[in-house]
Amino acid sequence: MTSGKPAQTHRFGADAQAAIPGPAIILVEPQMGENIGAAARAMWNFGLEDLRIVNPRDGWPNSAAEAMASGATHVLDRARVCADTDEAAGEISALYATTGRPRELTKRVLTPEEAALEIAAKIAAGEQTGVLFGRERTGLENDDVARANAVIAVPANPAFSSLNLAQCVLLLGYELRKRLVGVEAIESEMGKTDAASREAVNGLYEHLEQELEAARYFYPEGKAPAMRESLRNLLSRTPLTNPDVRMMRGVIRALAEKRRRRE
Amino acid sequence: MTSGKPAQTHRFGADAQAAIPGPAIILVEPQMGENIGAAARAMWNFGLEDLRIVNPRDGWPNSAAEAMASGATHVLDRARVCADTDEAAGEISALYATTGRPRELTKRVLTPEEAALEIAAKIAAGEQTGVLFGRERTGLENDDVARANAVIAVPANPAFSSLNLAQCVLLLGYELRKRLVGVEAIESEMGKTDAASREAVNGLYEHLEQELEAARYFYPEGKAPAMRESLRNLLSRTPLTNPDVRMMRGVIRALAEKRRRRE
Repeated sequence: MTSGKPAQTHRFGADAQAAIPGPAIILVEPQMGENIGAAARAMWNFGLEDLRIVNPRDGWPNSAAEAMASGATHVLDRARVCADTDEAAGEISALYATTGRPRELTKRVLTPEEAALEIAAKIAAGEQTGVLFGRERTGLENDDVARANAVIAVPANPAFSSLNLAQCVLLLGYELRKRLVGVEAIESEMGKTDAASREAVNGLYEHLEQELEAARYFYPEGKAPAMRESLRNLLSRTPLTNPDVRMMRGVIRALAEKRRRRE
Repeated sequence: MTSGKPAQTHRFGADAQAAIPGPAIILVEPQMGENIGAAARAMWNFGLEDLRIVNPRDGWPNSAAEAMASGATHVLDRARVCADTDEAAGEISALYATTGRPRELTKRVLTPEEAALEIAAKIAAGEQTGVLFGRERTGLENDDVARANAVIAVPANPAFSSLNLAQCVLLLGYELRKRLVGVEAIESEMGKTDAASREAVNGLYEHLEQELEAARYFYPEGKAPAMRESLRNLLSRTPLTNPDVRMMRGVIRALAEKRRRRE
């Protein structure tokens, strides 16, 4: 189990030089224990230790995962199992979604190299970072991608681009280690930010959604899910600070307040 | 079977854009068919097709390899099986040996990134290139490493550096494709944009400002200029599309409409 303070600020592995202050690796609804174990190995191959598992199909702990992770079982031992993506990414302000397929959602698409550069900069600026990996075969749902600030896609052979979970983790870990070991901090554009956590952005979204429901904005009903997703996506890809979130909430309150009082 | 002219000068796969003119991948005495199949998949994931197998333990063809290579079986079908390393690397002038462990041999040690850069340059200069991968667990014999012009080592976690055969092939293929194809901009949807113009964003801001004025949001008066600036700044640093702007205007309208009608 990780505590409230995850891997990013200081190491917490068995070997100080081995671990890197990488992002949380968040596996969303993984199915096969073997794949979870292989992902843990790939993480530790490059010194990543902060694993979070959302709603694993076969429960937890998982003996197949343990068997496959041999040599990296401490990564599994300290993994945090979460009920949903929001719980897993609660304190994270810079969240990335890995995807093999193009999406309808408008979002920046980064290579693992570009993502590693950006994540290293965010970590140097004191931000909490995380990367979402989808379930085998189907990948992440649009709903999860909508929560992310940017998408990571591996520039593979377009005729044969499917990589398994552990391979995706491996490539990202490889690029992260290149950036995070022996590469000095690069200054983030946002500076030492007060970047808004996932939780704060969720709170903002929910506030907005609530007010829009009251205003009957989500209409017609058939379009409502797509409308919600677009809204959430827009909030996620905006690099928001905590003052931004407070301002946005004030704006929503101002726009909605009197209407609500009078209804 | 490949002919005397291997992959380097021109493509010979089923899909011209998929294949890259990469080095020969030479597996020296691989043991498990599954690993050969997984290596073939990793090759084709990045467009490499020229596989050569030295003295496979379980003979050739190998049904376990076929099963594992699903989707990349054409790489196995054209693989060349050789009796020894010299036969496999016969026409190659720039030969590299992958190794996880430091060696007594005095030889240049390259990261996959450096190796890819060098191999790309050699291919451009018309040289024949190849990379040796050793057997599972024990890796390459010194005898094979001695034949190579340089060594490739993955900069992994020193406390847990062992990668399997397919993972090594994957990392090298990944770096080679970066160099040989260039990272063709993975199509970002923002790329072919319907990006909102300055004018559209200004229109959105003015709409919002107007409604917020009506709602007496800009209060106290002394703080109003800074509040306006913060709002405008937030809208400006969000990469908005035209659909986003339309959505935002709908949101503002929905929140404000009834209030306004009743005032």
